[in-house]
Amino acid sequence: MENFHVPAHEIDSRIARLKQGMRSRHMDGLFIAQRMDLFYFSGTCQNGFLYVPARGRPQLFIRRSLARAVAESSLAQVAPVSSVREIPERIASCHGSPPGVIGFELDVLPVREFRFYRQLLSARHTMDASDLILSVRSRKSAWEIAQIEHTAEVSRKVFEYIRETLAPGVMEIEFAGMYETYARRLGHSGQLRIRDYRTEGYNWHVASGTHGACLGLLDSPVSGRGTSAAFPSGASRKKLAAGEPILIDVGTVVNGYHMDETRMFAIESMPPAALDACRACIEIHDTLIAAAKPGMFCSELFDLGVKTAHKLGYADIYLGPDGHKVSFVGHGIGVELIEPPFLAAGRKEHIESGMVFALEPKMLFTDRFAVGVESVFLVTDHGGQLLSRVPVDIFIC
Amino acid sequence: MENFHVPAHEIDSRIARLKQGMRSRHMDGLFIAQRMDLFYFSGTCQNGFLYVPARGRPQLFIRRSLARAVAESSLAQVAPVSSVREIPERIASCHGSPPGVIGFELDVLPVREFRFYRQLLSARHTMDASDLILSVRSRKSAWEIAQIEHTAEVSRKVFEYIRETLAPGVMEIEFAGMYETYARRLGHSGQLRIRDYRTEGYNWHVASGTHGACLGLLDSPVSGRGTSAAFPSGASRKKLAAGEPILIDVGTVVNGYHMDETRMFAIESMPPAALDACRACIEIHDTLIAAAKPGMFCSELFDLGVKTAHKLGYADIYLGPDGHKVSFVGHGIGVELIEPPFLAAGRKEHIESGMVFALEPKMLFTDRFAVGVESVFLVTDHGGQLLSRVPVDIFIC
Repeated sequence: MENFHVPAHEIDSRIARLKQGMRSRHMDGLFIAQRMDLFYFSGTCQNGFLYVPARGRPQLFIRRSLARAVAESSLAQVAPVSSVREIPERIASCHGSPPGVIGFELDVLPVREFRFYRQLLSARHTMDASDLILSVRSRKSAWEIAQIEHTAEVSRKVFEYIRETLAPGVMEIEFAGMYETYARRLGHSGQLRIRDYRTEGYNWHVASGTHGACLGLLDSPVSGRGTSAAFPSGASRKKLAAGEPILIDVGTVVNGYHMDETRMFAIESMPPAALDACRACIEIHDTLIAAAKPGMFCSELFDLGVKTAHKLGYADIYLGPDGHKVSFVGHGIGVELIEPPFLAAGRKEHIESGMVFALEPKMLFTDRFAVGVESVFLVTDHGGQLLSRVPVDIFIC
Repeated sequence: MENFHVPAHEIDSRIARLKQGMRSRHMDGLFIAQRMDLFYFSGTCQNGFLYVPARGRPQLFIRRSLARAVAESSLAQVAPVSSVREIPERIASCHGSPPGVIGFELDVLPVREFRFYRQLLSARHTMDASDLILSVRSRKSAWEIAQIEHTAEVSRKVFEYIRETLAPGVMEIEFAGMYETYARRLGHSGQLRIRDYRTEGYNWHVASGTHGACLGLLDSPVSGRGTSAAFPSGASRKKLAAGEPILIDVGTVVNGYHMDETRMFAIESMPPAALDACRACIEIHDTLIAAAKPGMFCSELFDLGVKTAHKLGYADIYLGPDGHKVSFVGHGIGVELIEPPFLAAGRKEHIESGMVFALEPKMLFTDRFAVGVESVFLVTDHGGQLLSRVPVDIFIC
């Protein structure tokens, strides 16, 4: 783990695909500031910035720590800067006159910073490079799939721990702390990375009994109750109890690569209605993974889920009760927990070979409980291939 | 805890101060999207937006969950919206013609969203409202100070737990999981809120022995080693050992209000050089808290720290070794872990009565270890008043 680094061939291939996309968009340069984009394209997320010209070698500018960035990144040009104000001169000395069209991560870059960089870099024209960056990131390499598989193995053991330790009388949020501590022992680094500034990544999404049935703020059928108005989602201070459906949604991240999985648990017994609905979620889950093929629209997979839920008699509560349904059933996953493309209503992006998705068919019984399942799968030429190693099952402990 | 809500008089006073600031800046309306700003000014952080007119009543628009937002917020006008596209008509029906000058949170609002809202709201002129919002938030009310004191009591117990359980052979990152689990049992909600999109809030800042001496990316003398290039700060997989200085920096948040405290620990013994440096940090800490008075510049307190470190013979390693020093020693704290104003070099903001700061004098012995202390204090007319309840001491366990 200590010797982990992103290999040079990975970085080279990512930069090559990025530059190809830049040239086809007539983008002369790309200025990367966001931490996970920086990590993806340089191998380091030290405090700094990456400049990628459409033609020529990328330059990594590091505020701190230079020694660590040099050790972590395979890029050839890594330079210290004490202030970002030094960057334009460095770019000019390497690539000549300022680029005409500069791309920025406009989906995450705050307005104030954007205006500062735009002026600093004397950008004549600016362009939103977010979609390009995220599109390059959406197709995973063999090396990345191996990373995700490594995280999947850690996650499998975490779910095993959950099965062994689930007990009545422990608060939802405390129980999450227990399995998260165990996960860290196995290599989990703690932080779930989320791109959207209004969405919070957290690891304590435990929703038991009626607390699973709370409608909430998340773009998910299951928000959980949370601890107070200040953190109104995920685990609460409610104690786990026998006989209740317990939904546990675990994010795990090792060396930057995420897994996101949900399984249903119960202590002693689960109400038959919940068991039946869990089985329906698993059937939808299996159907969608088998059907996922390159060339499909993302919306087709979403629609197939709705159709399957209807066939199974769960149309009214699938993805939330009527009037409160969410319109997505899955999301890309990689160096961030939630990445495009989205398996959502109306989304016309194509599913491609090498894409990795977290698929989460869930249902909510108003005032009673939530049920669901979530696994991560890889799209291959022959359909979806499960990367999750946690048994796709219901666990009565 | 379950019945926690922000009282109406708090919200009314915050909105009144905000509107006063808007009028003095000739801002006609203010559109709030960021979660903690939303929570601060409405009492809820459900999925929605708050519109505050310079004259007239604020309108809270909720996508989900309306029922929870109504229960959580004392605002009178809370309306459901299925799409943000409904917002302009709602504003117009309440306040007439579109506002001429609209303020936005330009320090956090991504460019893409800003452009969408600007067009949606037909803003003729836009203005950066971040500084105004953060200035209103910087002066804490008696109710807020009571909240922070409540968090301080939870944090005190967490440090007591740390003293009782610190043991050799446990990984830094695993140990953090243990005290965080304990904190959650007492009301800690888990997530440290950070405003800046490039900074990560996390709870596992444990830096022992030489891992404390790693230079790193943080704007702090002590970055820690982290778990890999993908998360290169904070706790690592190194095991705690006897005889080493162990720096533990704990963030705790209850009902949205943060504490941020650091204490030094050792198992069995601490090297004399570290002990002496810890005592110097405590002397700087005490000196600055006693000196903090309304009307001072923030930079004056920073400069006093440097001067005191010099007097004590620690100029070369105070706030980092020469060539790697950071230029800040403290930050505001409240519903976010790090808020303005900053106790930093050259900062000419005035310290005011009612401001709450986390003060963190730290030192780094290259290749050896880090030491430091951090407490939270309130500025009163008579100097700083410690809100932290953890003894200001060095703990040999």
